Amino acid sequence: MKFHEIVRKSRSYRRFYEDKEIPQLTLLKLVDNARLIPSAQNLQPLKYYIVEYDQRNLAFPHLKWAGYLKDWDGPIEGERPSAYIIIVSDKKISPNVMWDHGIAAQTILLGAVSKEMGGCIIRSFNSDGLASAFNISDDYKIELVVALGFPKENVIVKEIENGEDIKYYRDSEGNHYVPKRKLADIIINKCK
Amino acid sequence: MKFHEIVRKSRSYRRFYEDKEIPQLTLLKLVDNARLIPSAQNLQPLKYYIVEYDQRNLAFPHLKWAGYLKDWDGPIEGERPSAYIIIVSDKKISPNVMWDHGIAAQTILLGAVSKEMGGCIIRSFNSDGLASAFNISDDYKIELVVALGFPKENVIVKEIENGEDIKYYRDSEGNHYVPKRKLADIIINKCK
Repeated sequence: MKFHEIVRKSRSYRRFYEDKEIPQLTLLKLVDNARLIPSAQNLQPLKYYIVEYDQRNLAFPHLKWAGYLKDWDGPIEGERPSAYIIIVSDKKISPNVMWDHGIAAQTILLGAVSKEMGGCIIRSFNSDGLASAFNISDDYKIELVVALGFPKENVIVKEIENGEDIKYYRDSEGNHYVPKRKLADIIINKCK
Repeated sequence: MKFHEIVRKSRSYRRFYEDKEIPQLTLLKLVDNARLIPSAQNLQPLKYYIVEYDQRNLAFPHLKWAGYLKDWDGPIEGERPSAYIIIVSDKKISPNVMWDHGIAAQTILLGAVSKEMGGCIIRSFNSDGLASAFNISDDYKIELVVALGFPKENVIVKEIENGEDIKYYRDSEGNHYVPKRKLADIIINKCK
């Protein structure tokens, strides 16, 4: 798959074929990609907790899904992620991850898409609940959770005009639409 | 190129074949990749100023290079980037880009590497100087600059033990070494 195809295919997926397990080696490779990312001042404060298939039910209760879908409480049993990668920062290394967590999460997601999987970056979680479920010590701050699986939903990018609503939504058939600005509207050179 | 090869090849490059111009269409495609990234709450506050070849000398004086290389003031004439993408946030859309700028910068860089180019994420810059050079209005905050070009240096990843120095360095032949932690040292599951 060409890189721009990976980027285009990498939507935020929230429904999956839950019974399709992700091999441990695959998860390790996704984290190894994140290991090699640029890091502000090369400090590398980020570390990772890999939640494999048999632990997935320990993570799910502490996550919130799709803030704009008011009538939807998240994926039902059978459509939940089959794995998670919890991105934490090591407070002893740096109190501030700058933008490293964005780089890491995106690199994990693009890696997943390149292997026919997909996922979603989640920041809305119960941090104490997650830390307790996985015995993540106080030395670490949970920054982001990347949910992973084999997507079972149709996510469609819809170009919008300036000023149009950016909230994602679903149609009656469950297709998920994501409004994105047009290229001409995000390049500011014309402001000169 | 496979995705994990793109990630591995995407080092922070700071010396380039400056005379090798990057076509405008290529730069637009890199920004179009960034247009399609996940964005916190899908707010999409990021916008972009594309600095093409003929404007490159306007950007260079406002950037600082490689904080750990005390005896190096940055690339000499002829080895400077041939283009830049300035990532700004639109303050009217959101006062806080969360981790979107990391996602955007990495997506631009990986896209560049997939096309045999390379670059460097820069946060050490004179914001007023850049804004003035490119008439970037006060509606925007400059978040990051991605320098781009065709790399003219050898950057080598070196695995380090826990506690070893993470500062990058060069040898007498100008090879650039970047210490990165080992995979086993960034996975915290073993802390259970």
